[in-house]
Amino acid sequence: MNSLKIPITVNENKNEKTPSNQLVFGTKFTDHMFIADYTEGQGWHDHRIVPYQPITLDPSASILHYGQTVFEGMKAYLSEDGIVRLFRPEENMKRMNNSCDRLSMPQIDEEFALDALKQLIELDKEWVPAEPGTSLYIRPFMIATEAHLGVSASKTYSFIIIMSPVGSYYKEGIHPVKILVENEYVRAVAGGTGTAKTAGNYASSLKAQEVADREGYSQVLWLDGIERKYIEEVGSMNVFFKIDGEVVTPALNGSILDGITRKSIISLLKHWGVPVTERKVSMEEIREAYLNGKLDEAFGTGTAAVISPIGELRWKGELFYVNNGETGELSQKLYDALTGIQKGTVEDPFGWVVEVK
Amino acid sequence: MNSLKIPITVNENKNEKTPSNQLVFGTKFTDHMFIADYTEGQGWHDHRIVPYQPITLDPSASILHYGQTVFEGMKAYLSEDGIVRLFRPEENMKRMNNSCDRLSMPQIDEEFALDALKQLIELDKEWVPAEPGTSLYIRPFMIATEAHLGVSASKTYSFIIIMSPVGSYYKEGIHPVKILVENEYVRAVAGGTGTAKTAGNYASSLKAQEVADREGYSQVLWLDGIERKYIEEVGSMNVFFKIDGEVVTPALNGSILDGITRKSIISLLKHWGVPVTERKVSMEEIREAYLNGKLDEAFGTGTAAVISPIGELRWKGELFYVNNGETGELSQKLYDALTGIQKGTVEDPFGWVVEVK
Ligand SMILES: Cc1ncc(COP(=O)(O)O)c(C=O)c1O
Ligand SMILES: Cc1ncc(COP(=O)(O)O)c(C=O)c1O
Repeated sequence: MNSLKIPITVNENKNEKTPSNQLVFGTKFTDHMFIADYTEGQGWHDHRIVPYQPITLDPSASILHYGQTVFEGMKAYLSEDGIVRLFRPEENMKRMNNSCDRLSMPQIDEEFALDALKQLIELDKEWVPAEPGTSLYIRPFMIATEAHLGVSASKTYSFIIIMSPVGSYYKEGIHPVKILVENEYVRAVAGGTGTAKTAGNYASSLKAQEVADREGYSQVLWLDGIERKYIEEVGSMNVFFKIDGEVVTPALNGSILDGITRKSIISLLKHWGVPVTERKVSMEEIREAYLNGKLDEAFGTGTAAVISPIGELRWKGELFYVNNGETGELSQKLYDALTGIQKGTVEDPFGWVVEVK
Repeated sequence: MNSLKIPITVNENKNEKTPSNQLVFGTKFTDHMFIADYTEGQGWHDHRIVPYQPITLDPSASILHYGQTVFEGMKAYLSEDGIVRLFRPEENMKRMNNSCDRLSMPQIDEEFALDALKQLIELDKEWVPAEPGTSLYIRPFMIATEAHLGVSASKTYSFIIIMSPVGSYYKEGIHPVKILVENEYVRAVAGGTGTAKTAGNYASSLKAQEVADREGYSQVLWLDGIERKYIEEVGSMNVFFKIDGEVVTPALNGSILDGITRKSIISLLKHWGVPVTERKVSMEEIREAYLNGKLDEAFGTGTAAVISPIGELRWKGELFYVNNGETGELSQKLYDALTGIQKGTVEDPFGWVVEVK
């Protein structure tokens, strides 16, 4: 598949662009999209780049009823040198295949998908915004399309890539966010779909997010679904704490997402010689650390916001003001390093960055 | 809304009908469908009956990424008297609203939805098959349609009803099925979405179902996600056991579906004076009962198959042959009573049946 040229149908009616400083996350899309179709017994076929356009589905299509769908989220950055860079895109393709496996969906050819993505970016290059904090958000996703009501794996799928120029995920930028620790709802347990990037995990989170919104918190922090003691992750971020000089983050336990920003942060910290441990972290431990003045910093990590310092945590009616509600030194240093590598302004000792040519 | 007439666009190209004895579950649909759209701030609007047709969605539509969708499953039966009957349809509409609440989706007007359904059935009445065991399967569902990548509740939705003439769900009819007790994967835990009829629950079940298929079992039986000890439900059925003369079924614990067949069975048993208890039921208890010769019967209950006697259970490599793999007396009696009420051939002491006129 890798050497095949992808047929391109050019969009003759270019979409109107939003000025970079007015970009809202995920509402505006580029001129083109990539699609490939899958049929059981035949494999992937009819890969093509076409004008961004609606998808047509039978009302009985599997995705609409039984939720067989996975997605990825990644970004392309345009630097002053005019080069567009992707950050560890092969990790996203690999994770997509892991998600597909959990959802009984077919595997994609990771190399071919990355190649298709590069061709799509090349075509829509003028859509990659340049201003600091902006990027091109990339959403590869796969949906089950078979017209059949019945709980079984679909026999047909579409793999699609759409792209959206975005400003910062949080309007506040790298200012600290307020996070509500969730006690009623559960995101996932081991044996469920928590490690997959699949729709159901997000659908189930909205109810808790509603409460958080109402109370003025930007996201919820999930606890484990069994004992409701241990920290899992934040709505769309993994989470780190700096306690008494040591950085800790919940271990990959079968119910949280294996975040690419998370694993990059761990590598960076190790590279810098900062102690970092993946293990169980309980809310009680965070509370103790806070009360003893040892909770130095807390931050979320994810593609959308890169690093989100946590300025306030609420747990069972108790408030913890982390680092006096200010961005911590380490959070800032990690943000600068990671966004610098992504933008090509800081040396990339890990070979994380992939240039689009 | 209730008194409004629903605009109908007639399908001029009738779909071809499959002979009743060749019906496959959920692959063939009637000539028309019902749709209504919802817009935040405006509510439901543009309700209409139109020819069965594809749905068009933006590639960024919320349903495709974040899984905000709920559905229902119910049936219409045609009797020899020429009357089409629905079974407790108001219960489905009520449960749909409960599901919507869990998924942060708007409520439907239950009475109006039922009225719309009746008008749709009336229009496609010739599609309701008459042969024993056949029925018209009805699938109301709601999907989030907003074109926006971002984990938040959609601002727009569509509520759709499609209908499919069906034979028996299991090709075998009321013959006993083989069920595999699942030890690795988890369907839901309290605090999750297990009580809602939403796509993610089914997507997450496919992996386990794959294993069951491979091993020759028709569905899996889920255990609780916390201790992996207590029985929850079967793939798309609730489950009952007759142990030493007493009928038991797992209590509604916040992670299983509140099945309409389940609650009807409980009412029927009480009506008949058969002892029935809703409580925790462990696999260990089932094993004990089996080994002591006290596991009289086991059966699943659901709209699709009504009653599915369980002839064989496999748990951690151990096999339990329930009632020598034959349909139990009580299972058969419940099946006859319930399908009789649904078809209008047995008296309906509960007022469960709603005639479509
Ligand atoms: C649930 C969840 N956790 C964590 C993350 C962070 O993952 P990544 O760093 O790969 O973006 C995301 C997504 O971005 C997510 O959706
Ligand atoms: C998970 C699950 N449990 C139980 C049932 C049975 O519910 P009902 O009797 O309302 O059809 C269903 C659906 O039919 C189901 O999907």
